[in-house]
Amino acid sequence: MKKYVYGVDIGGTNIKFGLFSSPEMELIQKAESSTPLSNHETSIFSLVGEVIESMNKKNCIEMSQIEGVGIAVPCPVKNGYVEKCPNLKWEKLDIYASMNKYLPSNLKIAVSNDANIAAYGENQSLEIPHNNAVFYTLGTGVGGGIIIDGEILEGRTGAGGEIGHMHVFEGTEPCSCGLSGCLEQVCGTSAILKQTIEFSKEYPTRLDLNKLTVKDVFDYAKDGDIVAMKVIDRIGEYMAISASILAVSLDPDIFIIGGGVSKAGDILIDTIKKHYKKHARFNTGDIPFILARTGNDAGIIGAASYVNKK
Amino acid sequence: MKKYVYGVDIGGTNIKFGLFSSPEMELIQKAESSTPLSNHETSIFSLVGEVIESMNKKNCIEMSQIEGVGIAVPCPVKNGYVEKCPNLKWEKLDIYASMNKYLPSNLKIAVSNDANIAAYGENQSLEIPHNNAVFYTLGTGVGGGIIIDGEILEGRTGAGGEIGHMHVFEGTEPCSCGLSGCLEQVCGTSAILKQTIEFSKEYPTRLDLNKLTVKDVFDYAKDGDIVAMKVIDRIGEYMAISASILAVSLDPDIFIIGGGVSKAGDILIDTIKKHYKKHARFNTGDIPFILARTGNDAGIIGAASYVNKK
Repeated sequence: MKKYVYGVDIGGTNIKFGLFSSPEMELIQKAESSTPLSNHETSIFSLVGEVIESMNKKNCIEMSQIEGVGIAVPCPVKNGYVEKCPNLKWEKLDIYASMNKYLPSNLKIAVSNDANIAAYGENQSLEIPHNNAVFYTLGTGVGGGIIIDGEILEGRTGAGGEIGHMHVFEGTEPCSCGLSGCLEQVCGTSAILKQTIEFSKEYPTRLDLNKLTVKDVFDYAKDGDIVAMKVIDRIGEYMAISASILAVSLDPDIFIIGGGVSKAGDILIDTIKKHYKKHARFNTGDIPFILARTGNDAGIIGAASYVNKK
Repeated sequence: MKKYVYGVDIGGTNIKFGLFSSPEMELIQKAESSTPLSNHETSIFSLVGEVIESMNKKNCIEMSQIEGVGIAVPCPVKNGYVEKCPNLKWEKLDIYASMNKYLPSNLKIAVSNDANIAAYGENQSLEIPHNNAVFYTLGTGVGGGIIIDGEILEGRTGAGGEIGHMHVFEGTEPCSCGLSGCLEQVCGTSAILKQTIEFSKEYPTRLDLNKLTVKDVFDYAKDGDIVAMKVIDRIGEYMAISASILAVSLDPDIFIIGGGVSKAGDILIDTIKKHYKKHARFNTGDIPFILARTGNDAGIIGAASYVNKK
């Protein structure tokens, strides 16, 4: 009898579903629903249950063929327990118990934070997954996930891997976390746009500052625009400082760079690497940096592969 | 038949030995020898073999009663392999193979870096050892060890836990590692003495700057000396920044502060905690800080307890 797993990526706007064969991890079907806007503590889980039943039906799969469901959530989570999730209005919620109301109770449920799950999925999608990996996700927020000995590092309360909030410079402006000097304040999308405006006061640029996008900044940097290049250089410098810190702490096998900003591609990785060579201590200088590969499917792939780990 | 383990702490000056009952881990006998000054690649291991044989004899113990030997070395080491150890003039050395020439080959040998071993020992010596712990050792050098899921985190090349070389400020003066801005350049003993001199140019002090010791600085700080207090405050601030970074990365259960400088006691921990409250992100603010307890025996205790882990 063929076996399957589901990967579910719960976000503030959408919930993504992936049905995969197991253990081959071939994607059979994807689906997407809007995140329910009310009664989040029940509606999200009943929706997940319904979509899984309907995907089973569509693919002529019995529930007994499902090995488990992996779930990525957009907040810190520890052993399936969420203290607080502002995006989804969850508080003190046990995801295992909530999910079990809508799925057979013998079904394996694996839960972790979305960036941790993406880290896990990215590492698993490599030809030979590494024991220890650090994953950065650069987007509106900057986050990440740390894999140690093949396992997601959740830490004491689930804050493990929140590397967007590493203190990397002396700052005074408040970050989304309430403090200042965070990596997110250099590498997050709003920081990138803001810094572009700042540099444009000092240097000439061909960028249209009235309808600026992060994509423009990277495109113009590739084309030699001074302001755009200065912005990318600053991102590379602070990413390198952050990576050098994690290198002397964890000495990981690899750094993986993902998230929307990573679509910039080689120019981003090359700039980080250039600065990393200056900042790397001891023999951590040759830790490789690669771009994430699974893109928008990182959540469902990671969540589905995490089922077989837990 | 009673069982025993040895903990051996190899330093650049001395080699310390501890014989412990197993699994109770009661210290039976301690010994210390000077580190041989020549032929380090063989002489150190033959000495370790000799001392263990003589300690066995003295305590009427047969080699068959020894469960294993844990060894702490003063350099990065990965799976028992040392790429380079300047202190001991070792290069590309397999410690398992070297040790097996002088001890029965069926004897379990466990090897790790001395700060990692101290981290392991400190955590094991707690009433209930934690899953995840970060240990700082503040001395001439600043180092540390990271325990994840009860295991020493060596990382890719053994540089895991080298947290004295986290970049925590913008600096230009070179650190012992060759780069600058390292935690060691604030919290190491020479940095402490240097900073005392610096502050004394601006503020009044009762410290005798001609025969200054780190102990004086802490003693006078307890007594309200302005320069001494400023120095301690600066250590506390940068230790707190470093801990806040590790907190959002690893979210450990505890921070343990050891090494010679930690003899300063409560004034050090209290100053770190005061600053940590300002720098801690999310709900990492309540991670406890404690002083290391095993003191000079951290190496032998850690090495001996590590035998039963490996």
